[in-house]
Amino acid sequence: MNYHSISESKLRRFTKTIFLKMGCAVEHAELAADVLIKADLRGIDSHGVARLSGYVRLWEKGRINPAPKIKIVYETPSTATIDGDAGLGLVVAPFAMKVAIEKAEKYGSGWISVKNSNHFGIAAYHTLMAVEKDMIGFAMTNASPLVAPTFSKERMLGTNPMCYAFPAGKYPPVIVDMATSAAANGKLEIAQRSGKSIPEGWIQDVNGQPSTDPHELKKGGALLPLGSNREGGSHKGFGLSATVDILSSVLSGANYGPWAPPFVAFMEPSANPVGKGLGHFLGAMRVDGFRPVDDFKNHLDNWIERFSSAKPIHEDQKVIIPGEPELIAEKDRRIDGIPLIEEVCNDLNSLADKLGIDRLL
Amino acid sequence: MNYHSISESKLRRFTKTIFLKMGCAVEHAELAADVLIKADLRGIDSHGVARLSGYVRLWEKGRINPAPKIKIVYETPSTATIDGDAGLGLVVAPFAMKVAIEKAEKYGSGWISVKNSNHFGIAAYHTLMAVEKDMIGFAMTNASPLVAPTFSKERMLGTNPMCYAFPAGKYPPVIVDMATSAAANGKLEIAQRSGKSIPEGWIQDVNGQPSTDPHELKKGGALLPLGSNREGGSHKGFGLSATVDILSSVLSGANYGPWAPPFVAFMEPSANPVGKGLGHFLGAMRVDGFRPVDDFKNHLDNWIERFSSAKPIHEDQKVIIPGEPELIAEKDRRIDGIPLIEEVCNDLNSLADKLGIDRLL
Repeated sequence: MNYHSISESKLRRFTKTIFLKMGCAVEHAELAADVLIKADLRGIDSHGVARLSGYVRLWEKGRINPAPKIKIVYETPSTATIDGDAGLGLVVAPFAMKVAIEKAEKYGSGWISVKNSNHFGIAAYHTLMAVEKDMIGFAMTNASPLVAPTFSKERMLGTNPMCYAFPAGKYPPVIVDMATSAAANGKLEIAQRSGKSIPEGWIQDVNGQPSTDPHELKKGGALLPLGSNREGGSHKGFGLSATVDILSSVLSGANYGPWAPPFVAFMEPSANPVGKGLGHFLGAMRVDGFRPVDDFKNHLDNWIERFSSAKPIHEDQKVIIPGEPELIAEKDRRIDGIPLIEEVCNDLNSLADKLGIDRLL
Repeated sequence: MNYHSISESKLRRFTKTIFLKMGCAVEHAELAADVLIKADLRGIDSHGVARLSGYVRLWEKGRINPAPKIKIVYETPSTATIDGDAGLGLVVAPFAMKVAIEKAEKYGSGWISVKNSNHFGIAAYHTLMAVEKDMIGFAMTNASPLVAPTFSKERMLGTNPMCYAFPAGKYPPVIVDMATSAAANGKLEIAQRSGKSIPEGWIQDVNGQPSTDPHELKKGGALLPLGSNREGGSHKGFGLSATVDILSSVLSGANYGPWAPPFVAFMEPSANPVGKGLGHFLGAMRVDGFRPVDDFKNHLDNWIERFSSAKPIHEDQKVIIPGEPELIAEKDRRIDGIPLIEEVCNDLNSLADKLGIDRLL
């Protein structure tokens, strides 16, 4: 595959300009660009600028409001529900995390359920806002229905990610950021493009039978929950995904389960919605609500050292601390630029032509 | 296998008497018995009275304090750390959940990290305390190290369960209660007793190679995280287990990772502990901190109905709502009694002889 290496600053300017063209305020355009660029820097290519034209198509369909009035609609000292006014999740979720952090500063923790939002980018972006304040960050979101629960041949849930982030001392933060499906949809897309077969346990076909053909997903198949099948514990992956769905959307008043609006603009949202837009759930807890920050960080450093030095099965393959691979990608890409595949570059150039701005390259 | 069916009330009396003989106060003995009996009623046989002699052996070794002074050692309005004073987790965790609920009543949510505790029984017991108050319940605990992270041949983590419970309206609560390993240790024990092989993906042998022999675990092998291997997403199961470990023990000041004290009395705890005892993490959030309770319950009922009616792969095997199988077991066993295998009955009778009380049967 052909790659073009684009500098962070160039890609950021381009992305911000697109959001400005959609009618976002400068502050919102910069924030939304920051969330997408962070994904590309961290190597989560499926959640970065590759999605930019998807956001634009949703805006063209009137499903994204570029100038949302985001507001708190329900609250207690440590909890709240926020209505995102159909804004970009890239803007709504950081707003909600700010509220969570303010509540945590006053009351020890803050927990926000969000309705009427859209795709929020990478969950790690939002949890890192808490980590910077010496807090533990939580972020979840529901998403377009692609995953079948155990025993179901029907798609009922999104890849519904969960993210937990913890501030360490001399080491980078521990960040668990994971789809609750066996494989993320981005991995399927890569296999579809390359025409390669996929491991058993990632998807099932339209009849609910295991398949290694990545194209079966587009023929009515479904992604499988983490655990892949009943023996492997797929009911647990389903349970985690259900937890994300309930906290994000049943709790806030967004659309849950199969009613979650699809990210792709060519699929219409349900004609009989059960709530408003997509839902998220975000939280922040002050570390010093439990013990002094330095004590926690020293012990988390010790945790990291002990797990990094666990006896490996293969000498050259040590245990990976959650968040480590993304951090390495970020260091490299800040220097070397962000590698975009030809297909994404062409897509971004077409977008530029359509909106009347300078091409990326 | 031979079973004896024992009535709930008889088993409860017997269990309470054992705890009284250990020196527990009446209130603590009744509570500890209630937690164990609840596990047996719900069909989680590995966490019920089958563990009673294990608790007694820990007490004989001086590792369980039957008369703990449980106290809050650190707090903000919505968070706290509790020191369990080496008490039974069966008593310490409900104490902590009460504090979480009180905080939630005042501030919307309550989050408690617990140190210096022991095995807390089934997580669902504690989350159900919150559900009864129209709150969402969270419970996690770390445990004896039996699970190897991805790429490790060393056991570093417990089966570290996560539990989330949500109050519904006309239906029973949705309760996700799951070990973050591919299979719970109780399933291994059943296979060991019956001499049957186990599915690939549950354990690895002492060299880190996949195995279907349940006895490999006792020969230095390890349980595998949910996802089983790298392709299946075991790094996600590892990430979830790490989250439980950090929230329960790095945050509270308990022993984390491989330092977690073993449940079995014949294995000594680490000579160089990094904290005190085992750790838990418990939380409660008021539903009406987010939206009116009836709105939430109506939508959760709708969620349950929609997921129950998802198109099944096999006509006779519908999607199981998390918590449903345990509820069915509980209904049956309240009427028919609790089936205990011969081995457990003998164990309980020996315990009775040792402590000088009436045998179970």
